[in-house]
Amino acid sequence: MEIRSKIWVEVDGEPVFGRGRRFLLEAIDKYGSINQAAKEINISYRKAWSYINAMEERLGIKLVERRTGGKNGGGTVLTNEARSFLEKYKKLEDGIKEIVDRRFKKIYGQ
Amino acid sequence: MEIRSKIWVEVDGEPVFGRGRRFLLEAIDKYGSINQAAKEINISYRKAWSYINAMEERLGIKLVERRTGGKNGGGTVLTNEARSFLEKYKKLEDGIKEIVDRRFKKIYGQ
Repeated sequence: MEIRSKIWVEVDGEPVFGRGRRFLLEAIDKYGSINQAAKEINISYRKAWSYINAMEERLGIKLVERRTGGKNGGGTVLTNEARSFLEKYKKLEDGIKEIVDRRFKKIYGQ
Repeated sequence: MEIRSKIWVEVDGEPVFGRGRRFLLEAIDKYGSINQAAKEINISYRKAWSYINAMEERLGIKLVERRTGGKNGGGTVLTNEARSFLEKYKKLEDGIKEIVDRRFKKIYGQ
């Protein structure tokens, strides 16, 4: 018997951010490219943008910005606000998984 | 912005018990009747039994027992093991909701 848990953020009762969006932002941060990030999490480029637009609108935060030039010919990176939001979410999500596991062991004795 | 969370119990990677099943067992405990409990949570009597059978099998616990006679003509009540399992689950679920809310406020400052 195992315990599972999940958290997500809502705005006005609508889901806005959860594990899937976390992976999307993490992948953008890793690759500096929406295209690469979309591939990594197995969604289309178009879908990735629709997720980003919806999050930006509902959270009221600009999440990505285009970088032009440079040796890799530019790309799309997370804004500082996006990075800050993501870091908080990761801290929250990772901490909760640990707490849930610990409480489960304590209460159910396994 | 609000945080939402959900927990559930799995056995061998399969979901077995969560908020919906909690409500079913609570309703059986309240009414002493599968029929009334099913009505309360808006599922059919047949569906209620299929949930109970699946939980009993996967958890390896007998959850309900038939009571015959008495002034209300009998009914179906939770076994002591079911009540014990349910109490633990409620303690776990309610405690986690509080913790998630508190951590969210602390980390996101809202």
